[in-house]
Order: sequence, then C-alpha cells, then structure tokens
Amino acid sequence: MDKKISKAVINRLPRYYRYLGTLEDENVERISSSELSERMHVTASQIRQDLNNFGGFGQQGYGYNVSYLRAEIAKILGLGRTYNMVIVGAGNIGRALIHYRGIEKYGYRVIGIFDNDPSMKGEVIDGTAVQMVDELAEFIANHKVDIGVLTVPKEGAKDVAKALTESGVKALWNFTHTDLEVGKDVFVENVHLSESLMRLSYNFSRYESGE
Amino acid sequence: MDKKISKAVINRLPRYYRYLGTLEDENVERISSSELSERMHVTASQIRQDLNNFGGFGQQGYGYNVSYLRAEIAKILGLGRTYNMVIVGAGNIGRALIHYRGIEKYGYRVIGIFDNDPSMKGEVIDGTAVQMVDELAEFIANHKVDIGVLTVPKEGAKDVAKALTESGVKALWNFTHTDLEVGKDVFVENVHLSESLMRLSYNFSRYESGE
Repeated sequence: MDKKISKAVINRLPRYYRYLGTLEDENVERISSSELSERMHVTASQIRQDLNNFGGFGQQGYGYNVSYLRAEIAKILGLGRTYNMVIVGAGNIGRALIHYRGIEKYGYRVIGIFDNDPSMKGEVIDGTAVQMVDELAEFIANHKVDIGVLTVPKEGAKDVAKALTESGVKALWNFTHTDLEVGKDVFVENVHLSESLMRLSYNFSRYESGE
Repeated sequence: MDKKISKAVINRLPRYYRYLGTLEDENVERISSSELSERMHVTASQIRQDLNNFGGFGQQGYGYNVSYLRAEIAKILGLGRTYNMVIVGAGNIGRALIHYRGIEKYGYRVIGIFDNDPSMKGEVIDGTAVQMVDELAEFIANHKVDIGVLTVPKEGAKDVAKALTESGVKALWNFTHTDLEVGKDVFVENVHLSESLMRLSYNFSRYESGE
C-alpha cells in the first residue's frame, strides 16, 4: 500500500468490518453503497470515498461483494493472523478481558497475565496462571508478545508501560485512567471508560435541563 | 449556555478534566495554556480556543486557575450530581463495571443489575442482587434510572435497548458489539472494544511489515 490512509478512515474500518460480518451472517452476498449507507447511517458518498482508499471494491450497478470486501478489510486491518497479548493488572477489567470471547475469533490471544499482588501469584484464570510483574521482562524475552494490555491503577501505568516497551512491545492497549508517554515507534490505543461515561452524562444532563 | 458547543470540543472536555485533576493532586494552583499544552500534547491555541467556548477562564499573563477551571468543566459535564445506572448483562464486562470504582467518585451509581440467566437470580454482586430482565420495566417505573448500561451479547442488544428506552431511559452506555437504533431523544455512547483493538493491530501490523 503506497498511499497514506488517513486516521479517520482507519478508525471507521472496524465498523465496516462489523457490518459486513452481520451481512454475511444474514447471507447477503452483495450490497450497494446506498443500502450500506442506510444501515450504517453514513452517507453513501462517504462509503464510496472510504473504500476507494483501498482500490475500490465496488462495481458500478452491482455493488460490493460482501465476503470479498470483508476479507479485504480484514487484510488491511491486519486480521487473519494471531496477536499474542499479555494483560498486566488482573483486577476486574483485566479479568473481564481475559474472559472476553469477542476478541478471540479475530486472532487476539492472551498468553500471559501479570499482577503485583502476591496473593494472586499462580492463580489460574481461564487456563493461564497469574505471574508477578517483575517476571514480565523475562516472559517477553522468551515469548513473542505483540500487544500489552494495561489494566492497572493509574499510579502503576507509567512503570508498566516502561517495562513493556523496554522489553520491545510495540502496541499498548491502555485502560488506565492516564495517557502513556511512549516512543514514536509504540502504538497506544486508549479506552478511557470514565471519559466515555462523562460524554454520555454531558448530553443527558443538558437534555434533562432542557437546553 | 446559549452557544452550541461542537461535539469535538465536548469529546475533549473529559480529558481536560482529568489533566486538571492530576494538577490538583500535584497542588498546582495555576497553569498557562502553553504548560497545559505541553502536558496534554495539544497545541496551546487549541486549548485557548476550546476553553473560550465556555467564556474563557484564563487571564492574560496569569494562566488558568486549576481548581476553578476544573470545577467549571465539571459543571459543564454535568458532574457533581448522582447518576443512577442499571447494568443489563451480568457477564464479565458487566461485573467488571459493577466493581469499577473509578466512576463512583464522579457520581455514577449502580442501582440495579439485570440478566436473563435464571441461575444468577438473587446473586448479590457488590451489595446489589441480580434481577431478571423481565423485571426491568417495573424496576425503572419505581426508581429513577438515568443511564442504562448494555453488557449483553450482541443478539440481545436490540431487545434490551427497547426495554430500557420504552421505560423512559434516555442515556445508554453500549458495550455490545452492535450499534443501537434509538429515537433522537436518546443518547448512546458506544464502547466497541474489538474495534478499538483492531485499530491498534492495524497500526502494529503495518509497523511490523515495515510500511
């Protein structure tokens, strides 16, 4: 791929992928940009423009081949391979992610769970024993770890990010209530739950006050 | 507030709120837009522009009063009051949210937990007994419910959204792997975890392949 694809387009791709999966489940073989537009509440021209970034998979008067388009988007998203993840922080959110089956089918695999609470040491969660954070560097040295998931309290975030990136992990999925400072070659995707909730209550409270 | 504030600004406010909280914890009393800019990796002019939307809390040559600015943003975000939430779906993500202490301090309070698994009926999680989904409408009729949290499998999302909104709930925090179709007076905030993860692996896989 020569062309630089904008971040906005990339951000929308997983949603296309999800809708196309639903269409596949419904045995829909082809779909026009206007039908897809109606389903996704995105303009048809936006859809055509987005998908043109990848060479355009549509045919005039025929629409998009659902399975083909989905497979192409999967390739672009880097799916269809396995990503090894370690989860650092075996609290509630960490445990929920370990049990979260929704991501396994896309190739995301939890190969290690770490915490700094000695009482958890050796506890087996979904077939994986909890290790201590001070064993993290050695584990990464001996295993291919693609993604580090941070589900520790805010106070521990900096040290965990440091330990992961110094061991060579290039992708961090950050659930901590803070932004991580990392090198330019490290990718961070944030899930800030309380910020998400605040956006919701902002809209709700304005609605309630009649604004 | 007369002026319509853009969604982009609103989306950034919780982050300002978080940074100002950290500054308060560090006993910082005032901060210039350029210092805040450096911390937040946002341009100083962006910060000034954003905060001007709310009447501008800064003073030339003095900077922003951290506590005052934070309190004002809290007001705008509709914090400082209690939001009653019900969680529908007592699976892993639902349970993690019930235990999630990060949001309690902002006034978000879980007052009901629902599931359709009869084996969970009456199970007490963090002091709240699980009720069955068919009891949801009656519960909402008898309690003030501000926010409905959907942590059910995708297949059940539509029915749960319908049950919540028909009972008058106007704000939905959606963790299901689908988009909800709701009326214009209902606010939905989505947390699509697998899409977040796909954005991360997209960047990572391109990095790995040297693109």
